[in-house]
Amino acid sequence: MSELSYPKSKVNRVNRLGERGKYECKAVHEIIMASPVVHVSFHPGSLEDYPVILPMIGKLGSFENPSADLSEPLDLYLHGYVSSRIMNIARGSSDEQPMKVCVCATKVDGLVLTLTPNSHSMNYRSSVIFGTVELVTNLDEKLYAMKLITNGVIPGRYDDTRVPPDSAEMQSTQILRVTIDHASAKVRTGQPSDYEKDMKRDDLREKCWTGVVPVYQAFGEPQEASYNRVKEVPEYISNYVKEAGDAEREYAVAAIQMAPSDKS
Amino acid sequence: MSELSYPKSKVNRVNRLGERGKYECKAVHEIIMASPVVHVSFHPGSLEDYPVILPMIGKLGSFENPSADLSEPLDLYLHGYVSSRIMNIARGSSDEQPMKVCVCATKVDGLVLTLTPNSHSMNYRSSVIFGTVELVTNLDEKLYAMKLITNGVIPGRYDDTRVPPDSAEMQSTQILRVTIDHASAKVRTGQPSDYEKDMKRDDLREKCWTGVVPVYQAFGEPQEASYNRVKEVPEYISNYVKEAGDAEREYAVAAIQMAPSDKS
Repeated sequence: MSELSYPKSKVNRVNRLGERGKYECKAVHEIIMASPVVHVSFHPGSLEDYPVILPMIGKLGSFENPSADLSEPLDLYLHGYVSSRIMNIARGSSDEQPMKVCVCATKVDGLVLTLTPNSHSMNYRSSVIFGTVELVTNLDEKLYAMKLITNGVIPGRYDDTRVPPDSAEMQSTQILRVTIDHASAKVRTGQPSDYEKDMKRDDLREKCWTGVVPVYQAFGEPQEASYNRVKEVPEYISNYVKEAGDAEREYAVAAIQMAPSDKS
Repeated sequence: MSELSYPKSKVNRVNRLGERGKYECKAVHEIIMASPVVHVSFHPGSLEDYPVILPMIGKLGSFENPSADLSEPLDLYLHGYVSSRIMNIARGSSDEQPMKVCVCATKVDGLVLTLTPNSHSMNYRSSVIFGTVELVTNLDEKLYAMKLITNGVIPGRYDDTRVPPDSAEMQSTQILRVTIDHASAKVRTGQPSDYEKDMKRDDLREKCWTGVVPVYQAFGEPQEASYNRVKEVPEYISNYVKEAGDAEREYAVAAIQMAPSDKS
């Protein structure tokens, strides 16, 4: 079977620098999962009001098909406090008046330095999801999503803690399920790329350094809480911190040598 | 004189976990300037459409008062391609129908691991700006903003490159000025904080490691372009990479020992 992709539509098509666009489920989903925080926008009451963006924790999974991997169709789960504004708006939505959101995750991978400011760029990966929100009311799905979100931050964490949440905790936490209607990613990789007119100028090229400064998300040594009683940092934490940190750093460097996603 | 702050209003007030809210200009502005990318939301044509978020480069400055520092009133400058959707909408706006945006920058500083999933948290800094957009048409202001944006990515870069942009470059790049109408920041610092009921459970505390994994933006060794001819990486680049990387790492660790911004 060929790779599953989101269909291109008016909503998700990457117009500007379209060669950077990616529509494969796996590409779109990986960027979301590698981001500790996503940005969520929803419509306030009216167009007179300011648009709104909230940073939230969001992770992808499928309650119907829990063994699905990132190349398969998934839903996005967001969690928040029960009486926050986004939850109140979600509760006021309906099939007739659905709550639509845009969710964006961006990872900067490098600062791309060229001979003139206008050709400067960044290596980056960005995913955008356009979806419809529903409150999760089924208790099993809510528990599934809580575990997904906790393990999405550090794999294996959920079962190492006091679970399940008690009834007060279940009530104070609200989970939103975003059904993905449209999605795409935009990715820049590769070397700097300069204008022909600047490449011809020896004086400029002898004077101005060109290259890429890799940028990546790093993890420091885990620091125990003042009240922690467990001597050793558990292996699932130290392994994750090492592996995820290595992967981020290696990607930022490798991205420079990847085929350029475009000419600027 | 006491420190300048954004007035609290219905638009910018931090309601949920209000003790994490910060309104000082300096606090709000520093988070934006430390973020290589900001997320920008604007209203599409109608509430039937999906909300929209774009990752963009945005930097703060004052064309009227160029020596202003981050504790003073500033505008946000965004740059983009002249025919992109956000620019087309900006061109269609007017005093009667102003274009409103929300701009958000978030930095994750640590994964906060506690005894039960619901008390898990992150240390983070997030700034949100609500503002009104105008196209920059004055050439001097446009050049000011281009320099501000280039030097906002790496201080000192602008004057080391071929400048000023030529007339084709000036025309293909559009700069937006966002007048800040409302703004606030939300910051979590400090140790993990567990529920009383879990703290009383010796079995749980002997088994479950609690603490913070620092998270920070790191910079790798600058990698020269295949066509670079300058032997040494210039000092303003290598110094910035070292200093900015050190500052990010040190903040993530220091934040754990700062006074807790709240109890969860």
